[in-house]
Amino acid sequence: MTGSELPLQPPTPVGPALPVTGAWMPGDDPGRRQFAVINQGRPFALEGGGVLPEATVAYETWGTLDADAGNAVLLCHALTGDAHAAGPSGPGHPTPGWWDELIGPGKPLDTDRYFVVCVNVIGGCQGSTGPASAHPDDGRPWGPRFPVVSIRDIVRSQACLAELLGIDEWLCVIGGSMGGMQALEWTVMFPDRVRSSINIASTTAASPFQIGWSQMGRRAIINDPGWHDGWYYDAEPGDGPHRGLALARSIAHIHYRSDESFDQRFGRATVDKLDRFQMWDRFQVEGYLDYQGDKLVRRFDANSYLVLNKTMDLHDIGRDRGGVDAALGRVSCPTLVGSVSSDILYTPRQQQELVAGLDAAGKDVEYVMIDSVHGHDGFLMEFAKLAPAIEQFVADQAKS
Amino acid sequence: MTGSELPLQPPTPVGPALPVTGAWMPGDDPGRRQFAVINQGRPFALEGGGVLPEATVAYETWGTLDADAGNAVLLCHALTGDAHAAGPSGPGHPTPGWWDELIGPGKPLDTDRYFVVCVNVIGGCQGSTGPASAHPDDGRPWGPRFPVVSIRDIVRSQACLAELLGIDEWLCVIGGSMGGMQALEWTVMFPDRVRSSINIASTTAASPFQIGWSQMGRRAIINDPGWHDGWYYDAEPGDGPHRGLALARSIAHIHYRSDESFDQRFGRATVDKLDRFQMWDRFQVEGYLDYQGDKLVRRFDANSYLVLNKTMDLHDIGRDRGGVDAALGRVSCPTLVGSVSSDILYTPRQQQELVAGLDAAGKDVEYVMIDSVHGHDGFLMEFAKLAPAIEQFVADQAKS
Repeated sequence: MTGSELPLQPPTPVGPALPVTGAWMPGDDPGRRQFAVINQGRPFALEGGGVLPEATVAYETWGTLDADAGNAVLLCHALTGDAHAAGPSGPGHPTPGWWDELIGPGKPLDTDRYFVVCVNVIGGCQGSTGPASAHPDDGRPWGPRFPVVSIRDIVRSQACLAELLGIDEWLCVIGGSMGGMQALEWTVMFPDRVRSSINIASTTAASPFQIGWSQMGRRAIINDPGWHDGWYYDAEPGDGPHRGLALARSIAHIHYRSDESFDQRFGRATVDKLDRFQMWDRFQVEGYLDYQGDKLVRRFDANSYLVLNKTMDLHDIGRDRGGVDAALGRVSCPTLVGSVSSDILYTPRQQQELVAGLDAAGKDVEYVMIDSVHGHDGFLMEFAKLAPAIEQFVADQAKS
Repeated sequence: MTGSELPLQPPTPVGPALPVTGAWMPGDDPGRRQFAVINQGRPFALEGGGVLPEATVAYETWGTLDADAGNAVLLCHALTGDAHAAGPSGPGHPTPGWWDELIGPGKPLDTDRYFVVCVNVIGGCQGSTGPASAHPDDGRPWGPRFPVVSIRDIVRSQACLAELLGIDEWLCVIGGSMGGMQALEWTVMFPDRVRSSINIASTTAASPFQIGWSQMGRRAIINDPGWHDGWYYDAEPGDGPHRGLALARSIAHIHYRSDESFDQRFGRATVDKLDRFQMWDRFQVEGYLDYQGDKLVRRFDANSYLVLNKTMDLHDIGRDRGGVDAALGRVSCPTLVGSVSSDILYTPRQQQELVAGLDAAGKDVEYVMIDSVHGHDGFLMEFAKLAPAIEQFVADQAKS
């Protein structure tokens, strides 16, 4: 058999033939979502110069707000997370809660005790105003017209919601990764409205390494001819930037994990047992990454992915504040900072710089290292290791 | 100004309008290349079942072979390297030698003393038979018909060349990354033809983490509509999988480096100073990654990129040999193993496993850790740190 006679096995298609937005739309089952219009008649002006004439946030809550509103905990989600932090998947919720193990009666964020709130970020696609939302001028999706949103814009949107809910001060603001960016901004923008914060696997400013990875995802999406310069919402089923978004997600999934975790999980096992390995046969890790890519396509809007990656790239707690150290000087509450030992994306170095900065500014800061092979995703997986530190820290704040 | 009035800045195109093969073709300036037909009238059968009816390798040499052919050093290149290991760029050589600082008169691989050989791998695109070569049946490029090539096939092609050059035994076989895979296979396939070997930033078997990254590059290429199922050779200038290959390269470039090296080099500097940051404005690290992607497109064939990534994924020194430990039992020569401390792709763990395996089998093995922020690419950058260990090790073998 010569090479030219080998069977040509075409690449496995990536990306399902599904509705192209991947976003929650009005009229869809809201599930546990509640909604609040936060701009209250005034345009919501954004740090980057854009304006949202209408701004809605979707959020979920667990537990009961005390009469003095002193038991409210704000949980900030990461890039592809949403307000569904706890509870099963089901109608309206394509995925189970991303911190379900930590939120509920008797759990570390004990909903018999605390009132836990999680808000879908603006620019997102699970109910808050984002690129898939209708533009007020023409009723079509904002699409690529959607303006750049910053972490500070997201935090201001959460502050508007807090006012509507009657929460003057959060007992604790908690987040990992992009959620940690929000938690940190809360302590700097609104020091008198935060009694404590927990910041896991995050950073004071997006690193060039993170920005580089972010750009790879953007390239993957805009290289897809189905992207149509962001105007894919009217595409036929099967058209749209499915392959590009799936690739962006697969790329991200790798650097969210670690060499060791893949090694333990997959080794060199192949999808099919074959005598001779051919060009498009796959190792199990490849099938898994394809699956992860496909899964995101079903629940996420590509334009939201573009916007929120840019949001993270722009994160810099020191911007227009005289630098990181000066910004950290504004913090007035205790902070618990956590790292995951094997995180190659938000390396422990970055959280240690945050700790050092807070410490140098004379702030109350604790640090916990989660020893884990799971890389960046450790903050979404190492519940048993996260639980004691979180439970203790929040309980201490509640007492004080 | 509302979001809808923001100027829409289109994404910067990636990929130049250039000849699409990116490969050296007969008739092009050969530069320092020499050529050898290695199949000598018989088809060159490949491990995966394919056959090359005609197999040519392009190679370069430096120095003079001793009368007893005892001073020959084989240097094995990495994924996007080629036979041009030393010397400037110039006609026929799009890039300077990738180890120029280590090869030459008075340098660690002293060409007044040693005869250094470097061979472009089969499946590659710089003169050896690969996907861009003419298929003997129809004179068109092999293209996607090109069979899967393994590291063992590459080593056998080098062994054929050694016979033609009259080299019965290499004084040392040296390689980093994919080159280290070849060096290791040499010591296992032909223990009586290798007096020593140096293996840097490589592995006994491709890890699932490496395979995952490899797949991201493949996806980036085949997602590009210019890929045309691998039949892009007749494409118009500007057509062809330029964007996909550039993205594949940019993806690779990030995990070839490190968080810390990017931080030191780029920080958060932007390409253009802007009052307001918009969606498609770029940080310097983004401009740099685009440049790295574009640069590869000008000198590399996308089908070669696909084939050689698969070659690396299939690397497993223990395949059909009863496992890694059994395979290492065949080694009979001293081995110097090197790691780069910040390598997240070929992590020091992998080289330490090689050292432990050789040590457990009672072999002569030395280990050197290169302390560097440059990540995997450290083996192509940390010349001052690599030089002493390499110089000493090869000199010791020459004496013994």
